[in-house]
Amino acid sequence: MMQVTAGDARMSQRLFLEDLAAGQRFVSAAHTVSAAEIMEFAARYDPQPFHLDDAAAMGTLFAGLAASGWHTAALTMRMVIESVPVAGGIVGSGGELTWPRPTRPGDALHVETEVLEITPSRSRPERGTAVVRCTTLNQNGEAVQVFTPKIVVPRRPAG
Amino acid sequence: MMQVTAGDARMSQRLFLEDLAAGQRFVSAAHTVSAAEIMEFAARYDPQPFHLDDAAAMGTLFAGLAASGWHTAALTMRMVIESVPVAGGIVGSGGELTWPRPTRPGDALHVETEVLEITPSRSRPERGTAVVRCTTLNQNGEAVQVFTPKIVVPRRPAG
Repeated sequence: MMQVTAGDARMSQRLFLEDLAAGQRFVSAAHTVSAAEIMEFAARYDPQPFHLDDAAAMGTLFAGLAASGWHTAALTMRMVIESVPVAGGIVGSGGELTWPRPTRPGDALHVETEVLEITPSRSRPERGTAVVRCTTLNQNGEAVQVFTPKIVVPRRPAG
Repeated sequence: MMQVTAGDARMSQRLFLEDLAAGQRFVSAAHTVSAAEIMEFAARYDPQPFHLDDAAAMGTLFAGLAASGWHTAALTMRMVIESVPVAGGIVGSGGELTWPRPTRPGDALHVETEVLEITPSRSRPERGTAVVRCTTLNQNGEAVQVFTPKIVVPRRPAG
């Protein structure tokens, strides 16, 4: 199937429901996560010792500084927007979210998005939904997050 | 069942697996979300027009400025930490996440967390897991997010 890399995505036309198909894949550019960024996010939204301080994190389940899962999720969203050029933007109502392992300082993350399922709306002829799986991987190819949302996708306008 | 409000939670002992039971509820204090805060989060993590600019948002599915779902999720996490005093902190591996409606500027959000299920670990005598449902509600009692994670909870140390 077609695979779109980040550069192509920025250059290409926006995609409508008719342009999507199960198996299609999109790959984002990488983002390297710093310890400072992990601690800044945590101080504001998830102020727990294992997200704020490496020494304090050593004695916890994480055994060292780890990003909040919500930080991984927020960074993932930005990479998805930059790499999946759906017309109208990325709008989802939710889905299954898992963090198989934590994001660590220095990790270089990227996101691979795969289209799983396309469903035209029965009641709204101008749109449909797509189920996509967004897998966030570190530099070792290990998944730090898997999110499988249903997103709203417009159909190509007639004429 | 016991219901713990935010003030009580800060004052109480930390809770171990033995202290949790299905049906138990925890209620956070409220947080009012400003338009500036919505736009600041979006600029960094979810830079799409409907999260950045009220006028641009009018012509979209959202019909007006709406917070990124990940912003609602991050704010929810802070309210959960402040209101659910689990020993060792709130550590989860994920769960089902839905956004039934968007968070709007001026919304006063709070989180109600209910314990659904407790499972002692078979292999790790010092801990277990709890499934909890964290419902984030606006000032009208409407859910803006429901997240149902499995969290790790330590057992009370012997002696």
